[in-house]
Amino acid sequence: MDFELVRKTLQGQGFMKLIGARVDRIEKGLCELSVDFREELTQQHGFFHGGLTAFLIDNATTAAAGTVVREDRVVLTAEYKLNFLSPAVGERLVCRASVIKPGSMLTVVEGKVFAVKDGQEKLVAVALASIANVPAERVG
Amino acid sequence: MDFELVRKTLQGQGFMKLIGARVDRIEKGLCELSVDFREELTQQHGFFHGGLTAFLIDNATTAAAGTVVREDRVVLTAEYKLNFLSPAVGERLVCRASVIKPGSMLTVVEGKVFAVKDGQEKLVAVALASIANVPAERVG
Amino acid sequence: MDFELVRKTLQGQGFMKLIGARVDRIEKGLCELSVDFREELTQQHGFFHGGLTAFLIDNATTAAAGTVVREDRVVLTAEYKLNFLSPAVGERLVCRASVIKPGSMLTVVEGKVFAVKDGQEKLVAVALASIANVPAERVG
Amino acid sequence: MDFELVRKTLQGQGFMKLIGARVDRIEKGLCELSVDFREELTQQHGFFHGGLTAFLIDNATTAAAGTVVREDRVVLTAEYKLNFLSPAVGERLVCRASVIKPGSMLTVVEGKVFAVKDGQEKLVAVALASIANVPAERVG
Repeated sequence: MDFELVRKTLQGQGFMKLIGARVDRIEKGLCELSVDFREELTQQHGFFHGGLTAFLIDNATTAAAGTVVREDRVVLTAEYKLNFLSPAVGERLVCRASVIKPGSMLTVVEGKVFAVKDGQEKLVAVALASIANVPAERVG
Repeated sequence: MDFELVRKTLQGQGFMKLIGARVDRIEKGLCELSVDFREELTQQHGFFHGGLTAFLIDNATTAAAGTVVREDRVVLTAEYKLNFLSPAVGERLVCRASVIKPGSMLTVVEGKVFAVKDGQEKLVAVALASIANVPAERVG
Repeated sequence: MDFELVRKTLQGQGFMKLIGARVDRIEKGLCELSVDFREELTQQHGFFHGGLTAFLIDNATTAAAGTVVREDRVVLTAEYKLNFLSPAVGERLVCRASVIKPGSMLTVVEGKVFAVKDGQEKLVAVALASIANVPAERVG
Repeated sequence: MDFELVRKTLQGQGFMKLIGARVDRIEKGLCELSVDFREELTQQHGFFHGGLTAFLIDNATTAAAGTVVREDRVVLTAEYKLNFLSPAVGERLVCRASVIKPGSMLTVVEGKVFAVKDGQEKLVAVALASIANVPAERVG
């Protein structure tokens, strides 16, 4: 798939704009997204919200799968699982997703989320996702 | 735990306000959250974004665990897994979380997400979450 | 799919025989398996081994999906997640799997595992599984 | 924890003996298990059974967590999720588990399973596991 199409698809999402996330990198089998800290993205202790971490994983893993899908298919998130390792504290949250195994029906993708504090990255969440490759005409 | 405290904790989150989600119900072992459709919550096909579904699951499962935790502990999301079943299309998205097994260290919670279209609910995602019960003094 | 074919497929597995598990029930969207306690199925505390619980979930969820698959497809386990709730202590371990959502590519199935002690069932594990429906000619 | 104790604990399990799995390596934060092919370990197509893959992940991830747990605690599997990537075909199945993040209550561990065919390793499954650290007196 055209990497620029993946980028534009992400940037065109209403939820991506509301959150203010950036597409930092799209390559074959890879996607990196990030978002800067602001009060609107926090949970009750002032950390980045876990739901924000999940959003980055959702979008980055699906986009990474989108870079390796056949031309006549589109990607849809089938499922993912994430583990939170540490509080997400810092000035920025970064998610890197990389394809573990492309498949004709399902692509398996790994996601890692890092909180950047004083310029230092710390791993705060890990994820495994299954992304479905669906015939383009089936999605409206 | 005081149910009103759980409700206030949710309502005080910056991310909850940005998304505009409501706390519809808090009872022992249960939490229900919902959010109305708006363009800002969508993915590229105009459906509710999968990351929004994950956010509701994150908050509702943790809050449900919060209703059964000991007084001297607080709840922290340890991990969850969600499966997307159908496109989330409709005027409203509702998440219901219910405790499957309270534990001294971990509480296991089920989450179900429904899209409401023309007043009809349709199950669009299911989840299993593990919520940690942590001594209150350990969380800043 | 022919329920008897699902049953025979399970019963013909080498691993199923080694473990000594039974197919107690196969119906549309449902599969129930069980196994009696013996020393050979235990972990270090004498409980049923977690890997045995996972085996029952693997087989029961895939078989349940097999009861609703199209005639020209076969089922393959794509992924699952399981949570252990309590030690699996008793004279018998039972797994019940039921289809949550049949799909053309993926079927989502729920699994529950119960330990039977003195005739009383206790829920000891819950699972969510994604089962792929693959064109029959692709599997050797 | 004493690595030899972890090894002996694994080797003493009834299910480990029934399956005939070996402990190939135990180090700080790491565990490697393997098992040779035999008919008794197969599913209906003659591949290694998915439940066997899950068993190796269950045991290897928990043992890896056991190498980093405090002396007064024992490890119990809380949950895991595994994705199957390719059919497990070959003369041997190997599981390598490595700790991603040790924790006071929960340790998060990654598991990878490889099928060895004609001496060549192929990645056939990946997993994420949460292992609970429980006060020793709580487990019988």
